[in-house]
Amino acid sequence: MTLRIGVIGVGRIGRMHAGYIARQTPRAELSAVSDVSAAAAEEVGAMYGVPALGPDEVIAASDAVAICTSTDTHVDYIIDAAEAGKAIFCEKPISLDLAQVDRVAAVLERRDVPFMVGFNRRFDPGHRAVREAVASGRIGEVRMARVTSRDPSPPPVEYVRVSGGIWVDMMIHDFDMAAYVVGSPVVQVWAQGANLIDPAIGEAGDVDVAVAVLTHANGAITTSAISREAPYGYDQRVEVLGSLGMAVSDNVRLSSSEVYLADETHRPVLPNFFIERYETAYRDQWRYFTDYVLDGGPSPVSLAEGRAPVVVAAAAAESARTGRPVAI
Amino acid sequence: MTLRIGVIGVGRIGRMHAGYIARQTPRAELSAVSDVSAAAAEEVGAMYGVPALGPDEVIAASDAVAICTSTDTHVDYIIDAAEAGKAIFCEKPISLDLAQVDRVAAVLERRDVPFMVGFNRRFDPGHRAVREAVASGRIGEVRMARVTSRDPSPPPVEYVRVSGGIWVDMMIHDFDMAAYVVGSPVVQVWAQGANLIDPAIGEAGDVDVAVAVLTHANGAITTSAISREAPYGYDQRVEVLGSLGMAVSDNVRLSSSEVYLADETHRPVLPNFFIERYETAYRDQWRYFTDYVLDGGPSPVSLAEGRAPVVVAAAAAESARTGRPVAI
Amino acid sequence: MTLRIGVIGVGRIGRMHAGYIARQTPRAELSAVSDVSAAAAEEVGAMYGVPALGPDEVIAASDAVAICTSTDTHVDYIIDAAEAGKAIFCEKPISLDLAQVDRVAAVLERRDVPFMVGFNRRFDPGHRAVREAVASGRIGEVRMARVTSRDPSPPPVEYVRVSGGIWVDMMIHDFDMAAYVVGSPVVQVWAQGANLIDPAIGEAGDVDVAVAVLTHANGAITTSAISREAPYGYDQRVEVLGSLGMAVSDNVRLSSSEVYLADETHRPVLPNFFIERYETAYRDQWRYFTDYVLDGGPSPVSLAEGRAPVVVAAAAAESARTGRPVAI
Amino acid sequence: MTLRIGVIGVGRIGRMHAGYIARQTPRAELSAVSDVSAAAAEEVGAMYGVPALGPDEVIAASDAVAICTSTDTHVDYIIDAAEAGKAIFCEKPISLDLAQVDRVAAVLERRDVPFMVGFNRRFDPGHRAVREAVASGRIGEVRMARVTSRDPSPPPVEYVRVSGGIWVDMMIHDFDMAAYVVGSPVVQVWAQGANLIDPAIGEAGDVDVAVAVLTHANGAITTSAISREAPYGYDQRVEVLGSLGMAVSDNVRLSSSEVYLADETHRPVLPNFFIERYETAYRDQWRYFTDYVLDGGPSPVSLAEGRAPVVVAAAAAESARTGRPVAI
Repeated sequence: MTLRIGVIGVGRIGRMHAGYIARQTPRAELSAVSDVSAAAAEEVGAMYGVPALGPDEVIAASDAVAICTSTDTHVDYIIDAAEAGKAIFCEKPISLDLAQVDRVAAVLERRDVPFMVGFNRRFDPGHRAVREAVASGRIGEVRMARVTSRDPSPPPVEYVRVSGGIWVDMMIHDFDMAAYVVGSPVVQVWAQGANLIDPAIGEAGDVDVAVAVLTHANGAITTSAISREAPYGYDQRVEVLGSLGMAVSDNVRLSSSEVYLADETHRPVLPNFFIERYETAYRDQWRYFTDYVLDGGPSPVSLAEGRAPVVVAAAAAESARTGRPVAI
Repeated sequence: MTLRIGVIGVGRIGRMHAGYIARQTPRAELSAVSDVSAAAAEEVGAMYGVPALGPDEVIAASDAVAICTSTDTHVDYIIDAAEAGKAIFCEKPISLDLAQVDRVAAVLERRDVPFMVGFNRRFDPGHRAVREAVASGRIGEVRMARVTSRDPSPPPVEYVRVSGGIWVDMMIHDFDMAAYVVGSPVVQVWAQGANLIDPAIGEAGDVDVAVAVLTHANGAITTSAISREAPYGYDQRVEVLGSLGMAVSDNVRLSSSEVYLADETHRPVLPNFFIERYETAYRDQWRYFTDYVLDGGPSPVSLAEGRAPVVVAAAAAESARTGRPVAI
Repeated sequence: MTLRIGVIGVGRIGRMHAGYIARQTPRAELSAVSDVSAAAAEEVGAMYGVPALGPDEVIAASDAVAICTSTDTHVDYIIDAAEAGKAIFCEKPISLDLAQVDRVAAVLERRDVPFMVGFNRRFDPGHRAVREAVASGRIGEVRMARVTSRDPSPPPVEYVRVSGGIWVDMMIHDFDMAAYVVGSPVVQVWAQGANLIDPAIGEAGDVDVAVAVLTHANGAITTSAISREAPYGYDQRVEVLGSLGMAVSDNVRLSSSEVYLADETHRPVLPNFFIERYETAYRDQWRYFTDYVLDGGPSPVSLAEGRAPVVVAAAAAESARTGRPVAI
Repeated sequence: MTLRIGVIGVGRIGRMHAGYIARQTPRAELSAVSDVSAAAAEEVGAMYGVPALGPDEVIAASDAVAICTSTDTHVDYIIDAAEAGKAIFCEKPISLDLAQVDRVAAVLERRDVPFMVGFNRRFDPGHRAVREAVASGRIGEVRMARVTSRDPSPPPVEYVRVSGGIWVDMMIHDFDMAAYVVGSPVVQVWAQGANLIDPAIGEAGDVDVAVAVLTHANGAITTSAISREAPYGYDQRVEVLGSLGMAVSDNVRLSSSEVYLADETHRPVLPNFFIERYETAYRDQWRYFTDYVLDGGPSPVSLAEGRAPVVVAAAAAESARTGRPVAI
């Protein structure tokens, strides 16, 4: 059986998902697309030979829907799809408003449809190897972890203004990654930010570098340090220290070439951004989703797992304001 | 304009090419497929929604054809396509018979259609970086080079029997790579082989490890050492030493993770085989071909470049027999 | 001219220093040694052919003294040597008692003798390369840094009881390293510890894993995460992110060998402990000290630089108690 | 018991050995030194507080002698020391004249004194790890090996003229390393050289880049490629492919730091030359020698092992002249 997946919202990220669904997910096919811009929907539909429809029609025409619209519209589409009994993939974050997330929870309790949140980094082979080293017991009991995220360059300040702030817009990935690789939820956070890169970001009320110290339920401590700018590319690293060893997922390079000259040797920088860096993760994410919907089993990223980092992000924002640790 | 490419021969490699053409080559589309097995052609055609036709019909229905049939049939299809005025991509090697290659040359002289040989490794980002370090003058005048190829495991002896021997079947890639990265043709070869892996390969009259020392027209010396077996994966490395420095293309890993334990640290092995290892190269090869056909310019791998390693392979086989260097 | 250096205190670390002075410091020679254990002093003296004397006699017999006794005796020996007009090298930390450090400052103001604190890690070639990348402006304005220290295994709990606690005993190195590589003093610290390795350490009132977030005068933020145990060896890393790039000093390995097998590839672990890991740093430290005393210039590690991390350590301990950031 | 070692010949290499013996070999001490230059002997003697004597007196005053004079004088000193019943360490090569080597063999048969040849690279931790991976069976039966040696810059042409030629002067190390890591003697060699670096070397009748293909008694094939010049430092690599895996000893760097900038990341080059690169090997060599003399057991590098690469070098020179493989 082939899973017919419709995509609601075909901006940059939705368009990318449509391509992976249409072309690189063996057990799935793209069924239809929708967008607030009819032109965008027509263009993507034409690209893959599927109809451009309204969102309700996409839901009706599909076994599963990928919700890739702006964050504030996620919940309504989730509920529509759930009520229609369709499987749901929702881009992260579900919502910045926890009450809205809980509305989704209530609906999903009633309408038991498959549901997965798009935390793409969980599907990166390197990060998965770290998780596997923990889950298998190979590195023993987890004591410390570290998650590093640095974007190549800061977003436009217009984006920053509507982003919800660095904690929920950017560090949410690190909060999710910490819980994922440590295998234990975050129960306390302390955070500190600074505006060191672009003064306009500070004027917009946000910070552009940030650190957080997370305490997990099992006692382990994770440090996360992020930056809106890293001139050498998109820096993505994960590391876990356990009682028997350490597991590391290091950066990837544009190629594994090196040039040796008289003064130094030279290696390629990192991929410029997430679409290149997480190409395999984005592709595999759809295979995990499809297998989950068709074969059953636990969600690769459940609603509870999608909700948790939103809570941590809010706590981190509070901690950054007050200078004190905040319990979750 | 979109280049309509038909594929003649959809065995393992042709099927892979069809997928890249259909799904990951922005300026191209798959037009039709053909195979001696009608069932195989039907299956691949259905997969991409294109007709399964006879080879002549594929040529007629396409702007360009990819010839992916068994080696001994390449030349006839090339000539058919050339006479029809179509652009041609031919899997390596063009032919094991140099007289046949020259037949192609004669036809192409008359019918000036775009022609490219499928030496996929030239399109690997790491190997290209080595070539670029040489071509740009960054590492100075080339003095020595090294090409390493090791397959994960030996092919079935039935394949070995019809392969033409290790020199033309396997080391042909290294001969091409040497000429490519050094930027100078091979003018002499000395070679030695041994049967150290599978006695059945020896009984079939072939060797399973082999070395060659190549002298280039510019005086540089390349060493190549290959093996039909490498338990840790598909080992593919290139290195050039120049008067100003060295350029290296090292192996890639399944991921850039590492697990540190009390006795040793552990990294993932290499991809198991060429389809995984050269995924980017295979994909990009079609972009280079398409740009070449649509925009003009020199062939990414010309007939002369495709012919040269066949000549070197024959000379290497002779050297391995006689123990003496053989001039090209 | 050769600098005649006497060593007061020839326990493990003093004995090591004596060896480097005697045998691997071109412009210095060992003049005499002293220890509370006469037998130890005799043994080390015999090893290098120098007399075993009382501390006052060592000071009298030398151009410079290395004070390697237990921390609580440092200050008295420093003052004795300063009053005698001798150059002084003092093992870190100068004292756990800031009033005592200030007593030293007062004496040194009056008796202007060369004075250097033994923060050995500053002399590691990798860490120096990071510092140099910052100092030269190569990576631009510093925004974030990271210092990682993990000992192979925890010390005996008897040691922990008299160590002054993890902040001043272990993390003091990281506080110094942060100020060194960032090139800006620490003005605020937030810290958190946990007892995850050995319950006996917790019973002794200490923690065995710890993190600190340091804010520097220039606005940069450093995260430090340390552990009393790392099964794979002595983990020592430093990293600085600037506006133009990142500089990293990564771990060293027992050798740069690797074994590739069918399931994984295997590399050697890290050196087991500081004497091996910082061999070059310990050796070079004496060359820096000797050049400084003989040639003049600023101290490689001044009293103020030696005092600063003691202050940060006290603030970190307070922060760990209260959960709030502490200003320096 | 302490082994009293005298050094005959304290040019650059002998002086280095004297330092390691005097200062970093726990079970040995330097007893006396000798040199054709009395001034040199006096200087080194003074440095370590040992007498500068004539060679016979050094032999008489020592338990063991290190022969570090010019190659053509090795044999006479070896025989003198052997007749005096002293243990012998001889710098490589024993002699360029095999008849002379056999003279030594005859004497050693009669006077059974400990004898070791100074092939320092065997004591490098990385290369030893490769040997250990083979000897332990971890990588299975050896099939191929590779030894890479590149000096940072060519020697003065005056040196080249008296060096005996690249095969015995430089590649002798690779011949020894091949036999060592493969664990099987070389039985055939094919070689080719070229003069690509300095025309004056060609005018002196030598080549400056060279390759050799070695066949071992167990059937394995080693390729060696060397160069008199490598702008990025002293390139030293060893690699063995076996039936179960591969063992590699890769280059070391000046430090494990890296600077990431916008266009490329930058790592330190390799040590400039052998005294730095093989510091540990040179130091450990004396520990192996001392343990061997004091505790018995097989020689770390026996006369036969010291003789073999001289034979291979002669055969390689012949092969390079004739273009044909030469059996040993």
